[in-house]
Amino acid sequence: MTSVFDTLTKEQHREVNRQFSLFSMGAAVIIPEEELKAKIAGSILTNKPLRIKLGLDPSAPDVHLGHTVVLNKLRQFQENGHLIQLIIGDFTGRIGDPTGKSAARKQLTDEEVRRNAETYFRQFGKVLDMSKVELHYNSKWLAPMQFEDIIRLSGQITVARLMERDDFEARLAQGKPISLHEFFYPLMQGYDSVVLESDIELGGTDQQFNILMGRHFQEKFGKEKQVALLMPLLEGLDGIEKMSKSKNNYIGIDEHPNEMYGKAMSVPDALMHKFFELATNLPADQLQKLKRDMEDGVLHPRDAKMLLSRTIVEMYHGAEAAGMAEHRFQSIFQQGALPEDMPEVRWPGGKPVSVVELLTALKLAPSKSEARRLIQQGGVKLNGAKVTDTQLECTIGEELIVQVGKRSFMKLRAD
Amino acid sequence: MTSVFDTLTKEQHREVNRQFSLFSMGAAVIIPEEELKAKIAGSILTNKPLRIKLGLDPSAPDVHLGHTVVLNKLRQFQENGHLIQLIIGDFTGRIGDPTGKSAARKQLTDEEVRRNAETYFRQFGKVLDMSKVELHYNSKWLAPMQFEDIIRLSGQITVARLMERDDFEARLAQGKPISLHEFFYPLMQGYDSVVLESDIELGGTDQQFNILMGRHFQEKFGKEKQVALLMPLLEGLDGIEKMSKSKNNYIGIDEHPNEMYGKAMSVPDALMHKFFELATNLPADQLQKLKRDMEDGVLHPRDAKMLLSRTIVEMYHGAEAAGMAEHRFQSIFQQGALPEDMPEVRWPGGKPVSVVELLTALKLAPSKSEARRLIQQGGVKLNGAKVTDTQLECTIGEELIVQVGKRSFMKLRAD
Repeated sequence: MTSVFDTLTKEQHREVNRQFSLFSMGAAVIIPEEELKAKIAGSILTNKPLRIKLGLDPSAPDVHLGHTVVLNKLRQFQENGHLIQLIIGDFTGRIGDPTGKSAARKQLTDEEVRRNAETYFRQFGKVLDMSKVELHYNSKWLAPMQFEDIIRLSGQITVARLMERDDFEARLAQGKPISLHEFFYPLMQGYDSVVLESDIELGGTDQQFNILMGRHFQEKFGKEKQVALLMPLLEGLDGIEKMSKSKNNYIGIDEHPNEMYGKAMSVPDALMHKFFELATNLPADQLQKLKRDMEDGVLHPRDAKMLLSRTIVEMYHGAEAAGMAEHRFQSIFQQGALPEDMPEVRWPGGKPVSVVELLTALKLAPSKSEARRLIQQGGVKLNGAKVTDTQLECTIGEELIVQVGKRSFMKLRAD
Repeated sequence: MTSVFDTLTKEQHREVNRQFSLFSMGAAVIIPEEELKAKIAGSILTNKPLRIKLGLDPSAPDVHLGHTVVLNKLRQFQENGHLIQLIIGDFTGRIGDPTGKSAARKQLTDEEVRRNAETYFRQFGKVLDMSKVELHYNSKWLAPMQFEDIIRLSGQITVARLMERDDFEARLAQGKPISLHEFFYPLMQGYDSVVLESDIELGGTDQQFNILMGRHFQEKFGKEKQVALLMPLLEGLDGIEKMSKSKNNYIGIDEHPNEMYGKAMSVPDALMHKFFELATNLPADQLQKLKRDMEDGVLHPRDAKMLLSRTIVEMYHGAEAAGMAEHRFQSIFQQGALPEDMPEVRWPGGKPVSVVELLTALKLAPSKSEARRLIQQGGVKLNGAKVTDTQLECTIGEELIVQVGKRSFMKLRAD
């Protein structure tokens, strides 16, 4: 039997291997690997781009770093000439969950779906070249389907196969109800791949079942089967749960550079390399060097984390904003450890006040003379910077952190 | 709490009880009995007929006595002023089984469905007054349903509930595949009751699950729930399996009177009373007397079976045909026991032949003298009637059964 690889030139062979190792990088599972390679080879031989599918839930349009794991992978495909197919699952979103048993899924209006999709696309533009992306709403082919079509679709899948999905299996075992209509979600997602003739579908590892439905239905409907390329799930800042808006453990790609930098600095050490690999666009060789340096102790975890934070801010706000965020973070936070639960106080902004007066007014010093003594001893910091001049006046801008000794902090906000 | 019964007059109360005991007669299960009684009472109070539903599979239009069990029950409702709703499941029949795993269900064309339905209705006319029956094809409301409607319908039922159906449960336990689309059959049947606002649905006990789906969906869609009135399944002539065309153990209501009478005579003794109760229209008091007489030995089983056979033929072909079929049966079969597997021989019809010649030609006697001796000893019968004249000539009409001694039989058919 001849294979597609036999007809490749040496140069084409190298190109197949280059793309294959690039696309495989960081992936958790590829089902099946050899088909991915064959598809890349076919694409190079015929000079036709591969169709790379990503399905999107229209109900949660705030994009965070957890989402960018697949977006970064899509960008690699795009940069190598392949075609990105984004599918908004508006049909699912418009229907919602009729049983009301899953609190997470509420019925969306057409208008909400459209607006959420626009929010998505604007944010995706920070990672992908949206002018080269195909956009699809699956209501286009799902809404007009009639009972007869649905019976035919349902005839191509067994109940036992659907029950294999982890959450269905667990709920049935626990005696928790599964509404019949929930079986349609994987069916719809699978049928989308039939309609769009996708070559590869991307998703997190939690999407394995649904993405394999695409392979199943493509085969049943006489199409070439797509490859499932599953990326690891990125944990959130708590280091435990999957990053998600509902857990409030996320870094949103629309967040302010300072906020983004600060959040990235709180990534647990154990997850740092994972964040480098999945949430940045650093090239493979640099990632390897970073990993080695961290393991050898050549690179201090704090420095590594600053590089991570700067890289992430730079990806979404540019180099200048990243530099400013880093500088600010250093000046405020890095001279000493700050507690997370500082008391906050409102203070009239824009009006100069002497530091001595400030300390007594805030009851951080019992008297003006004591306040002066504290300054002279080097025990007072403003925004992390030691105060040495007992005559110093300051003006409260947006925010000022006042520190006395090692343990007393107060955050002032301009009124 | 006041109930519907409190507002009934004494006379109306009696009428409710009369109808209730009539409709309950012979039923295997009524779910729930008290709702049936309340519905009858409501109908009498408001002077509105109850809507009695029967669903029909359009793929097997040959009506046999097994079907008449529910038809006879429908007739009782009809004779008491209630409205019969017959539903042809043409939508199901038109779609067929896409997996091809159930050999029984093949896809029907619109034309076949229509023709089968007509065949049904013509036969039903022998039991029901078809001018007072509502006819429905469920494709009318099922075919135009779109994905959104189906999702909504499916959201009203759980997978666990569907899995409770005996055959699904058994197949899953045995690892046999259930196609997802098979779940739609009970859904469709249930939804039919929502659309038609049926008060009572009739069926065999094997329809309990599907009929209860009607109650379930009516409730979910805010309708009054129907009552399930389930009739016992009538065994076939083998006395074991449910009567069905595929088992060839049936008495068709379109069959020739002679065939029908003969088949009815072969009903096993143990099932005779069940046939009387479920397959005839004899009134309750006569049924009770028959049962008593059979149990007391006052009525010989053969005489009871002749009454059964005559009653059945009379129901579908009239009294005269029944009398003729009985007379013919007696003259042929009842002088001696006939084996079922007689050898058959073709013989030139319409031409007289002497019995002696016949016996030797058929090798029922080794010689003419021996043939004569057998006749003189009374050992030869034609169609059950003893031959005494050794000179007798006979002409083969349609069929002639020749018997020599107790064990040798031969059936001659005119050529």
